[in-house]
Amino acid sequence: MQAGKPILYSYFRSSCSWRVRIALALKSIDYETIPINLIKDGGQQFSEEFQALNPMKQVPALKIDGITIGQSLAIIEYLEETRPTPRLLPQDPKKRAHVRMISDLIASGIQPLQNLSVLKQVGQENQLTWAQKAITSGFNALEQILQSTAGRYCVGDEVSMADLCLVPQVANAERFKVDLTPYPTISRINKTLLALEAFQVSHPCRQPDTPPELRA
Amino acid sequence: MQAGKPILYSYFRSSCSWRVRIALALKSIDYETIPINLIKDGGQQFSEEFQALNPMKQVPALKIDGITIGQSLAIIEYLEETRPTPRLLPQDPKKRAHVRMISDLIASGIQPLQNLSVLKQVGQENQLTWAQKAITSGFNALEQILQSTAGRYCVGDEVSMADLCLVPQVANAERFKVDLTPYPTISRINKTLLALEAFQVSHPCRQPDTPPELRA
Repeated sequence: MQAGKPILYSYFRSSCSWRVRIALALKSIDYETIPINLIKDGGQQFSEEFQALNPMKQVPALKIDGITIGQSLAIIEYLEETRPTPRLLPQDPKKRAHVRMISDLIASGIQPLQNLSVLKQVGQENQLTWAQKAITSGFNALEQILQSTAGRYCVGDEVSMADLCLVPQVANAERFKVDLTPYPTISRINKTLLALEAFQVSHPCRQPDTPPELRA
Repeated sequence: MQAGKPILYSYFRSSCSWRVRIALALKSIDYETIPINLIKDGGQQFSEEFQALNPMKQVPALKIDGITIGQSLAIIEYLEETRPTPRLLPQDPKKRAHVRMISDLIASGIQPLQNLSVLKQVGQENQLTWAQKAITSGFNALEQILQSTAGRYCVGDEVSMADLCLVPQVANAERFKVDLTPYPTISRINKTLLALEAFQVSHPCRQPDTPPELRA
């Protein structure tokens, strides 16, 4: 067990890194960022040094309390269990199930299908169509689910892990030019969340590794 | 809130359905199965009736305690919170983080890239190579992670959610003819788990919808 600030291995544009940055911001956890550029040098995630830290060669990874955790939702659940305030999972088990269902829908059902390594595999000319299909198919389901779970946010009126997944996924949708008109609930919740401080300081346009031309 | 047995919407060969079937078996939860054939009739998951239940048009979905939950890990976490014995997450938060990291590695990092709907998209001639690449890339990482987390099972000596993800993923690997020689730890744990009753009764070859020629 080591003392010292947690270290987040992050890439400014990675939607999974953003999820964790929001959690850290909401819980007021002070941390250091070590940027891992997924494109430069053929991808810094493939370096031996980083692979030793996270064999999945993906960001984010969080060094905290003497361990290194990969996988954004596993990191957020750990933060929730060890730093429970403010909570990111509701108290009621049924609402917790809804939060996790929405989080997994995005983290397993959408994001993996449109991430950098998969898009490389499908070839440049098919990338946009492929990513759009993955996102619209997931958003069609999500919009329908939110009809019954949402209040101000994805599940009721408290910010939860589901919201930490929603906002970065909407940003990806915008990057891939997905028409968001069919998703009024997703769009409304996204806008409400983006007004919150924690979603702003964690935004890809405000990270240590954000290129100057993308800063805002 | 309704009384009555939980209902699992399942497909015998779905690895995500199998994860949940193992959890139900370990926790001795009596349930009914409604088979959803992912291939017959163009895919029964696309029926209006099923879409109303699970807008993601995927199995598994579990009707329980008056709600319907989609996404296998969300279902397992709900079962863990409401039916905690025997536990599928260790007590120590760091070990819980390892369990969730391994579960997410499989549930977000491997399975979604080799599931039926994605393989349809990549075209028949590329399916096998595509699936093998997704699985070997994930298993390379997993084998390395297990070096430091595994005991008898994926994390220490207690069966956990990570094991519920491992066994069905190894079955998929075998189906896609992945060479498992480079993964001695994965293979050893898989074999140990398959000897347990809960992994046997939940096995794809013993489900109500298993075709006669695949029964064992």
